[in-house]
Amino acid sequence: MELNKYKTGFLKHLELSLQKTTPEGLYDPIHYILNIGGKRIRPMLTLMSCDVFGGEVTAALDAALAIEMFHNFSLIHDDIMDAAPLRRGQITVHKKWNLNTGILSGDALLVWAQQLLESYDGEQYKELNVLFTKTALEVCEGQQYDFDFETTFDVNVNQYLKMITLKTAVLVAASLKFGAIIASASQKDSEHIYNYGLNLGIAFQLQDDYLDVFGNEDFGKQRAGDIIENKKTFLFLKTLELANEKDKEKLMKLYKTKVPSEGKINEVTQLFKGYKTPQLIESEIQKYTSKAILCIENLSIGNSNKKVLMDFAKQLMERKI
Amino acid sequence: MELNKYKTGFLKHLELSLQKTTPEGLYDPIHYILNIGGKRIRPMLTLMSCDVFGGEVTAALDAALAIEMFHNFSLIHDDIMDAAPLRRGQITVHKKWNLNTGILSGDALLVWAQQLLESYDGEQYKELNVLFTKTALEVCEGQQYDFDFETTFDVNVNQYLKMITLKTAVLVAASLKFGAIIASASQKDSEHIYNYGLNLGIAFQLQDDYLDVFGNEDFGKQRAGDIIENKKTFLFLKTLELANEKDKEKLMKLYKTKVPSEGKINEVTQLFKGYKTPQLIESEIQKYTSKAILCIENLSIGNSNKKVLMDFAKQLMERKI
Repeated sequence: MELNKYKTGFLKHLELSLQKTTPEGLYDPIHYILNIGGKRIRPMLTLMSCDVFGGEVTAALDAALAIEMFHNFSLIHDDIMDAAPLRRGQITVHKKWNLNTGILSGDALLVWAQQLLESYDGEQYKELNVLFTKTALEVCEGQQYDFDFETTFDVNVNQYLKMITLKTAVLVAASLKFGAIIASASQKDSEHIYNYGLNLGIAFQLQDDYLDVFGNEDFGKQRAGDIIENKKTFLFLKTLELANEKDKEKLMKLYKTKVPSEGKINEVTQLFKGYKTPQLIESEIQKYTSKAILCIENLSIGNSNKKVLMDFAKQLMERKI
Repeated sequence: MELNKYKTGFLKHLELSLQKTTPEGLYDPIHYILNIGGKRIRPMLTLMSCDVFGGEVTAALDAALAIEMFHNFSLIHDDIMDAAPLRRGQITVHKKWNLNTGILSGDALLVWAQQLLESYDGEQYKELNVLFTKTALEVCEGQQYDFDFETTFDVNVNQYLKMITLKTAVLVAASLKFGAIIASASQKDSEHIYNYGLNLGIAFQLQDDYLDVFGNEDFGKQRAGDIIENKKTFLFLKTLELANEKDKEKLMKLYKTKVPSEGKINEVTQLFKGYKTPQLIESEIQKYTSKAILCIENLSIGNSNKKVLMDFAKQLMERKI
C-alpha cells in the first residue's frame, strides 16, 4: 500500500525530531506517548495531501509532526479527563507518572507542536498557524460539548454531529489542508481537501459508533463500550428521537445505570434495532462518505492523484488502515 | 503614576476582546479568571515597552492580552498542580468548577492567547510567535524543575536561579520584548529590554523569597509560607550550602515535616540569620536590579524614556505596583 511510504517517512522524522530531553520529568512522558504507536493517520494525511498537490513531501514532515504532536497532547489530557488507565494498550501518562505530569507534559507538547511550524516562513507560516489555533480551539470546544452531553438528555442528533465535527473531524480536515498549504495548492483546492477530510472524519466517527455495537469484536475495543458508558451517540439519540413515550422512558432509564451488564446491552440493542437506527446510521455514513468523495472530484489534480484520495477513503472506511 | 494609563487601556481592551462565549462550560472559567483582578504587570510591560520605543501603544494591545492570557493559563494549571483553593482571594477555577474544566479551559486559554497574535503580520507575526512558544516551553520547564526540587535536597543555588529564571523571569522579559518587536525596535534594543526584564524578574522573585520570611505581613500572603511548605528557596539553599554538618542535618530535618508550627518557622529563621543568608540574598537582589538598570543604560532611547523604565524597576522593587 502506497500509504506505507508516508508512514515510514514520518516515523523516521519523528525519531530524529525528539531532541528536547531535559528536564526528563517533562519530556520523558512526551517521548513515551509519541513512541507507543498509534496509526499515524493524521500525519500520513498531511504528507499524502502535500504529495497529491505536487508538493515536496519532505517539506511537509514538520507540519505532519505538529499535527501528530497536537493529537497526542489531546490524548494525554483527554485520558486524564476520562480517567482512562490505558491508551494503545499501554499505561496512560497520568497513570504511569501522575496527574501533574500529565497536565504539564501535555501543555509542553501542545506548545512544542506549534513550535514545529516555525520551519515555515512568511504567509505559509501564518496560514499554518491560523489553521492550527482555529482547529485546536475547536477540538477543545468539541471536548467540552462531549462533557456537556454526559449530564443531559437534552441533546439532539444535530448537536451530536456538531460535537463530533469539532472533536474529531476538524483535525482530520486540518491535517489534509496542512499538506495543501505546504504544496501551495489553490485556495479552492485547499477548501475542497479540507471538506474531504471533514466529511470523512464524520463518516469515520459515525462508523465507529456503529461498530461499537454491531461490529465484530476484533477491533480491540470492548463491545458496546458506548452503551456501557451511556455515551449519547448517534444510535442512542436517533432512537430517542424516534421512540414512543414508553420506549423513550425505558431507554433513558437504561442510560441512568452505570453497572455493565449483558442485559442492558441487549435491551438497548433491541431498542436501536426496533427503530431501525442501525440502517439510519449506515445511510448517514454513506452520505458523509459520498460527500467526501464529491470533494475529491472537485479538485484540480490528475486522476491518479484523485485515486490516491479515493483509495484512502475506501481503506479508512473498510478499517484497513 | 504613568503606568496607570497602560493598565486602564489594557483593561478596556480586555473587556472588548472576550468575545468567545460558547460552549459556556469552556469559556466561562476563562472569563472568570481574566476578570478576578491581578496586577496586570506583564501586559503593562508590553505596552510600556512599545511606548518607550516609539511604537503605537494601541498596536501592542493584542500582544499584551496574549501575554496576560498565557499568564492566566499557567495560573489555572498551576493551581490544579498545587491543589490551591484560592487565587487572588477568589476560588480557583478547578475548585469553582472541577478538575476537567480546569484542564480544558486552561488548554483553550493557551491557544486563544496565541491566536491573538494573528493581529500581526509578516516577520513581526513570526517573531512574536517564536518568542511566545520559546517562552511558553521555558515556563513549562521551570515548573517542572520546581516540582523536581520538591523531592530532593540535591539542589544548588545555581539550579534554583535557573528554575526561577524559567518559571518567572522569561515571561517578564518576553512581555517587554513583545513591545519592542511591535515598535520595530532594533535587534540590540530588543535584546537589552529582554535582559532588563530577565534580571528584574529574577530580582523580583528573590525579593519575594526574602519578604516571605522577613517582610511585614501586609502583602496579603501567609508569613513564612515558603518555610511551612518546605520550599527550597534561595534562603534555604544558601543556608544549606554554608551550614556546618550539624546545622545542615537540623535544617533538612525541619524541612521534612509538613505540620505548620511557629517553632519550625523560628528555628529555620534563626538558621538563616546565623549564616547571614538574609544579607546575602539582599546583595543578590541588588546585583540583579543593578544588572537590569545597566540594560536600560544601553538602550538607544531618550533619557525621559529611560527614566520610565528606571521608575518602573524602582516601583516594582519597592512593591508599589
